[in-house]
Amino acid sequence: MVRTRTPGTRERILSVAAKLFATHRFHEARMDDIAQEADVGKGTLYRYFQDKEALYHTLLDRAADELARRLDEADRSSTDPRVRIEAIVEMFLVLFDEQPHLFDLIQHAEVMHRPGRNFPWQRAREIAWRAVETLLAEGHRAGVWVCADPPLGTLMLLGGIRAVIRFGSPPRPSGLASRLTQMFLYGLR
Amino acid sequence: MVRTRTPGTRERILSVAAKLFATHRFHEARMDDIAQEADVGKGTLYRYFQDKEALYHTLLDRAADELARRLDEADRSSTDPRVRIEAIVEMFLVLFDEQPHLFDLIQHAEVMHRPGRNFPWQRAREIAWRAVETLLAEGHRAGVWVCADPPLGTLMLLGGIRAVIRFGSPPRPSGLASRLTQMFLYGLR
Repeated sequence: MVRTRTPGTRERILSVAAKLFATHRFHEARMDDIAQEADVGKGTLYRYFQDKEALYHTLLDRAADELARRLDEADRSSTDPRVRIEAIVEMFLVLFDEQPHLFDLIQHAEVMHRPGRNFPWQRAREIAWRAVETLLAEGHRAGVWVCADPPLGTLMLLGGIRAVIRFGSPPRPSGLASRLTQMFLYGLR
Repeated sequence: MVRTRTPGTRERILSVAAKLFATHRFHEARMDDIAQEADVGKGTLYRYFQDKEALYHTLLDRAADELARRLDEADRSSTDPRVRIEAIVEMFLVLFDEQPHLFDLIQHAEVMHRPGRNFPWQRAREIAWRAVETLLAEGHRAGVWVCADPPLGTLMLLGGIRAVIRFGSPPRPSGLASRLTQMFLYGLR
């Protein structure tokens, strides 16, 4: 008998795993529970993912790909650097609200991460830093704003967005991306 | 024979535990290792702290007290709201640089935290939010700046400081607190 892998099964496993990892300590989230919740046998589960770390890695890797794709789209949405900043802020808020387990997944993965092993979300961070730094430097050169320290500006903006996502909760107040962008660009005035 | 508790022993245990918790997965950090590193017997260790969670709790609780004390000091350092903001930014940078394990400890504790149990660092967060929100509202009322949304401003500032601490490393560039404050107050100009 030939057993085939189907996208539906793989997606179901990933979706169950995301929820379980985000709500349990890593060593408490069991492959048995993932198999049961996803309604597959343990043999099937292990044919798709060799262990919990592989599942984790796949989840974060896919989220990183999605972030890279949407960031690029937001960054190309206008020629006006101010509009592009706001599109990026909006993209982050929407992405994390669409995937309510992503934030906790990243945080768990980081704490569980063994030094020396590849940490998949680091790639997403570096993509985001580079995009924002480049945009801040571009706006500075074009005279749209003054930003002598794009890396510092990038940390301020992305750290601020993170705190809003982390300590607020959906539904977000309307116009949040715009207010956040205004505050970043123009400060308290 | 009467065994007494000495502050030296307690401090030594806490210092060893902070380092071990920050660098190991929670379930991998063993009371045995803490006892050995701190050069005390296991019986002594358990007389001071009944388990790993008690140790963790004590470490974060002390850090929260220290943060509250220094925040209050920074907030009273001037009558000028701009100077007070910068004093608070500087205080955060110094506090976390002085305690290099604190950041990871908080992150580990949050991921390991069981819902419904008291999470000691939450108290520190609320104290910091309240202080910054109050200051932003005061400056707004006094006409020093325009801040229609102090809670959002607070998240932006504290999230930005967190990112700078998390993704930079000591020694910090000179004037960092001042540049961070300028960017927050005046934006990109």
